[in-house]
Amino acid sequence: MSAEEKLKELGIVLPELPKPLGSYVPSVRTGMLVFISGQLPLKDGKLIKQGKLGAEVSVEEGALLARAAAINGLAVLRAQAGSLDNVTRCVKVTGFIASAPGFTDQPKVLNGASDLMKEVFGDKGLHARAAVGANELPMDTPVEIEFIFEIKREIGREVEGS
Amino acid sequence: MSAEEKLKELGIVLPELPKPLGSYVPSVRTGMLVFISGQLPLKDGKLIKQGKLGAEVSVEEGALLARAAAINGLAVLRAQAGSLDNVTRCVKVTGFIASAPGFTDQPKVLNGASDLMKEVFGDKGLHARAAVGANELPMDTPVEIEFIFEIKREIGREVEGS
Amino acid sequence: MSAEEKLKELGIVLPELPKPLGSYVPSVRTGMLVFISGQLPLKDGKLIKQGKLGAEVSVEEGALLARAAAINGLAVLRAQAGSLDNVTRCVKVTGFIASAPGFTDQPKVLNGASDLMKEVFGDKGLHARAAVGANELPMDTPVEIEFIFEIKREIGREVEGS
Repeated sequence: MSAEEKLKELGIVLPELPKPLGSYVPSVRTGMLVFISGQLPLKDGKLIKQGKLGAEVSVEEGALLARAAAINGLAVLRAQAGSLDNVTRCVKVTGFIASAPGFTDQPKVLNGASDLMKEVFGDKGLHARAAVGANELPMDTPVEIEFIFEIKREIGREVEGS
Repeated sequence: MSAEEKLKELGIVLPELPKPLGSYVPSVRTGMLVFISGQLPLKDGKLIKQGKLGAEVSVEEGALLARAAAINGLAVLRAQAGSLDNVTRCVKVTGFIASAPGFTDQPKVLNGASDLMKEVFGDKGLHARAAVGANELPMDTPVEIEFIFEIKREIGREVEGS
Repeated sequence: MSAEEKLKELGIVLPELPKPLGSYVPSVRTGMLVFISGQLPLKDGKLIKQGKLGAEVSVEEGALLARAAAINGLAVLRAQAGSLDNVTRCVKVTGFIASAPGFTDQPKVLNGASDLMKEVFGDKGLHARAAVGANELPMDTPVEIEFIFEIKREIGREVEGS
């Protein structure tokens, strides 16, 4: 089953592209790599929830927010790659988790994003990863997640030197 | 207008390379990509200002410090690429912003670096980005910013396998 | 002297691969680049020490823990590249250092990892770098370090499109 088919089966509809908060773009291609800007759990332009893990946000909620941020990342990725079926690998996921003092379960939170990659892309979704804590994040988001994907050579070639 | 010409028009003189604080180098090329080490707002080897956003440092000051760190990044980039005119894209900017409790305007601070990329490189300066908070940074710097650039294929080729 | 010979001379035996804490893999190759997941100072599956720099962990201990995390990173790298002798460059090291309030010596801690790269790979071990603080890290680890390496073209080619 292709990634786009899998997405449909999961009942996931990719949202409109969230607007960047600063003077940058949602993603950049270089060769076969696509760098995705830090994604927040925005829905209709608003954070689904604010606060920190270990305080206002539970691990279970955090994982769902990580999944929501990852869905936004897939929307950005599709806009760049044309179709998720042009993706050959999820290379790297870096998750910054807003953490109250003493919260050390960042990996469990980031699993919400990692699991989605596996569900959508299968073995191509298995990625290198880092989960780290942050004392504060933009707009008081509980999670911010960035991604690097590899896409098909011919798709990458089109934009070389762009 | 070329990037080097634009820099001149902006009245920006790139400084001497800031010395790395540890056992590493300012930048590494791999293929067409240049990875720039985390840059601080150093001037003549000293931090322009110390402290945290939301406490000792205002958003406006922070944005100027981010711009200063980005200027140091361009100095490193020129040393690696020979000339800024060999740059084909600013691929990724990651900004770590020292944040006092409750400070959530990291994107506005990082705009100081992002805007400079756009001013110098035009559309080639539009980058993917992540702005995150940190409770502490080296030397009590308010901002630390790292960069990935893409340079011309023939420049990249010279160093392949280096 | 090759990197594998150098490792032997240093008396370093690379450990069994530490198990990832989430739904991801220890490393991913894309072209000539290898992305290594965030590494912790685990020994036999347990953190050598927990706590924060500037509180429970001294700079000297922190540097040793960074070295231990880097050794785990080399184990992951060897598993991916077949041999450390297939490595053409250590491209980037990013170190997250768990920091108590007021701790600003993150670079000295990360030197424990940077110095090892230089010892093992010589000039090929010189890398771009960022050292940043974090208020909390997974499992209360004092350090988490991620790496990007460049490997020989023919090794990279084998897995292109994987």
